[in-house]
Amino acid sequence: MNIILLFPDDLQSPSHARLTGRRLTHVLEVHRAEEGDTLKVGLLDGNLGTGTVTRLDAEALELDLDLVAAPPPKLPLTLILALPRPKVLNRALIAASSLGIHRIVLLHTARVEKAYWGSPRMSEENLLHQRVLGLEQARDTVLPTLQIERRFRPFVEDRLPALASDSLRVVAHPGDHPPCPRAVEGPVTLVVGPEGGLVPFEIELLQVAGFQPVDLGPRILRVETALAALAGRMF
Amino acid sequence: MNIILLFPDDLQSPSHARLTGRRLTHVLEVHRAEEGDTLKVGLLDGNLGTGTVTRLDAEALELDLDLVAAPPPKLPLTLILALPRPKVLNRALIAASSLGIHRIVLLHTARVEKAYWGSPRMSEENLLHQRVLGLEQARDTVLPTLQIERRFRPFVEDRLPALASDSLRVVAHPGDHPPCPRAVEGPVTLVVGPEGGLVPFEIELLQVAGFQPVDLGPRILRVETALAALAGRMF
Repeated sequence: MNIILLFPDDLQSPSHARLTGRRLTHVLEVHRAEEGDTLKVGLLDGNLGTGTVTRLDAEALELDLDLVAAPPPKLPLTLILALPRPKVLNRALIAASSLGIHRIVLLHTARVEKAYWGSPRMSEENLLHQRVLGLEQARDTVLPTLQIERRFRPFVEDRLPALASDSLRVVAHPGDHPPCPRAVEGPVTLVVGPEGGLVPFEIELLQVAGFQPVDLGPRILRVETALAALAGRMF
Repeated sequence: MNIILLFPDDLQSPSHARLTGRRLTHVLEVHRAEEGDTLKVGLLDGNLGTGTVTRLDAEALELDLDLVAAPPPKLPLTLILALPRPKVLNRALIAASSLGIHRIVLLHTARVEKAYWGSPRMSEENLLHQRVLGLEQARDTVLPTLQIERRFRPFVEDRLPALASDSLRVVAHPGDHPPCPRAVEGPVTLVVGPEGGLVPFEIELLQVAGFQPVDLGPRILRVETALAALAGRMF
């Protein structure tokens, strides 16, 4: 937690916040702050700055806020990610959010097990929490948007063209394809398939939608490692 | 586990292996293989290929080996990493190993807590195991070397010049420095400091040794995420 992220509900006034729960516990146990100390804070979708502790006890943390700095710019990257195994989902969301990816789409594909969609990790609460953890890690305040797409073909045919318009479109896919482009100027839409890969029919539909398959080399990386390597390469 | 990594001790002959323990359990419970099935295998510091199951029961897995493919090339990257917190160490080693980093140095710096060196995770067995997990993930066989350096100054002054000779030398350090270079041709030696950063004296000693500070931008990434982003950017 490299910043304490504040939500609108935490604000008692534009310059004063009152926190309980996880963030209170963290400040008590990890920061071990005292009254008068300043903590790095940020307001969800707002500015970064400092919070001066005016109260800290078992019940609440109260902060006087001074929020003057803009959050870091997002990467102009839309990630369309085949829904990972529940165990992997949290790690992938934290990594994507901390890297500054501005939009995430979780997509069903032929090799995504249907049961993954029923995992408790797919609750709205968890999907928000993991992205918040990424923001807290990266000292960012701007939540990446998250879109759930449980049917591949209608998404790719009907909604993806508008979503990806004016962006460089690549799909990570093993094979005799060009390598992923480097140092891209402008927005990118990146499709990352599931552990078993996308099937030929899915690649074809994506190609029709203007997506170029790119090869990521011979190493098989964990999803969150691959996302970071791709983001580092392209931006 | 995208390959089963074989060690010299597993070989009963150059073309036959006998496994027990963690890898046997994995093949029984995850692969659910049967006699006659072929599994992707690799020999430590040797070739990749297939193993045909000739025996599989609660006691042992036996494989007939056909090892014909070279492992993927390593990145010509030496990572000098301030020893992370024990909780972070395993993740960093798996990521570094899966990315193909060919040499890892774990280094003491002023802001590394001395207690970290006494963690059970610093056992030779664990340091090997985490790197093996990275190889199994990436389908690689070539173990990154690991060097332990518990004194900063003698390492940087006496051993680092030879280690880093003929390489591009960069140290990730927040501040008004150039960004990390991209698409480097040839070897790189990269220093990554601890969570609290390197201290000015350490940066000065590294500069004397030819290291250029580079800024990684405003986001604070987890160590393993930063390593992947840097590797993706530079290679």
